[in-house]
Amino acid sequence: MITLYTWLTPNGRKVSILLEELGVPYSVHPVNLSKSEQFSPAFLMISPNNKIPALVDETEDGSLSIFESGAILTYLAEKYGRFLPVSGAARYKTLEWLYWQVGGLGPMLGQVGFFEKFSKTKSPIASARFIAEADRLLTVMDKRLAEFPFLAGEEYSIADISAYPWVVTATTFLGDVLGDRMSSKPALKRWLSIIGERPAVQRGMAVPAI
Amino acid sequence: MITLYTWLTPNGRKVSILLEELGVPYSVHPVNLSKSEQFSPAFLMISPNNKIPALVDETEDGSLSIFESGAILTYLAEKYGRFLPVSGAARYKTLEWLYWQVGGLGPMLGQVGFFEKFSKTKSPIASARFIAEADRLLTVMDKRLAEFPFLAGEEYSIADISAYPWVVTATTFLGDVLGDRMSSKPALKRWLSIIGERPAVQRGMAVPAI
Repeated sequence: MITLYTWLTPNGRKVSILLEELGVPYSVHPVNLSKSEQFSPAFLMISPNNKIPALVDETEDGSLSIFESGAILTYLAEKYGRFLPVSGAARYKTLEWLYWQVGGLGPMLGQVGFFEKFSKTKSPIASARFIAEADRLLTVMDKRLAEFPFLAGEEYSIADISAYPWVVTATTFLGDVLGDRMSSKPALKRWLSIIGERPAVQRGMAVPAI
Repeated sequence: MITLYTWLTPNGRKVSILLEELGVPYSVHPVNLSKSEQFSPAFLMISPNNKIPALVDETEDGSLSIFESGAILTYLAEKYGRFLPVSGAARYKTLEWLYWQVGGLGPMLGQVGFFEKFSKTKSPIASARFIAEADRLLTVMDKRLAEFPFLAGEEYSIADISAYPWVVTATTFLGDVLGDRMSSKPALKRWLSIIGERPAVQRGMAVPAI
């Protein structure tokens, strides 16, 4: 049985989207970040970095806990044999865009959120830096999606699943900061619409239900 | 034949360390960031995010180019069957710490470098944020290494290879900012010393030779 430890964030929703796409049963354990539940000793045992998402899979071979959304996506994709090719160029095109999201798009949009939304003290240099970098990354993504229907190429994959909740955030929560720049990114807008129409994506984006 | 596009940075050195550990032949193509060579159209074809490292592998099956250091490490580890277990818990422990480095330790130390070393305009709020986060991440790493000899557990892996050049940066280039905090992290210091004694690591850290 799979248990997903998650909250109302892009990184958490990557995993619920994939679980919905796979159609496997799972239970949701909300970790309320506004109540600092990620710092509880019980959660620390599962996620030593104190962050969601984390996943525990109880199998016949024992219990496996995994943190880091990119590792969880890879685990589930490899366990069920979907959304990540097992070999060849398509596998590594998928992984390079997955790592690109984890190492670039996610952290940079996260900083835009901090300096534009959460921090009471403003920092013009930090805001300018992270807004410019976020826009650059979204432009890289738009160029890729002008050439191929999906990030990894011809097939929908965990690279798209990883990026989708973050691009949604860029156009909603951060829409007043970054939204205007989306009009110059037609391929990204097209991709956002196509991914967003998938029923499993819609179900995954509604997790956790609180 | 493998060609590594790299420069004098932690992300580039992850890949040269792994290539040296694997003992496979490769050629080095320096991409001089101080001359903005990463923006050349030829390099953009290989690395659409305009960043090093990138790797091109010319095989009998054709030419494969990969960007993003985490994806390159995974490609090489899977191609040569070393430093990343093929299945089981050990595989996902390796990947979770690899993703942790790519999504956390690297980007946060990178921001410390920008605000403390590169930016002429100082931002106390940004400096405080990123120094605190870098120290938190190094503390998470120290706790892990107090329990296990290596990040993934009992075996040296691409998770260690990925983190090593960044921890070196924290103690050298960023040593005046973060160095004092290392004295409270004995397990991390022990790990740094053990990894740094490996001849392949020393050779990989000297790439590119310029």
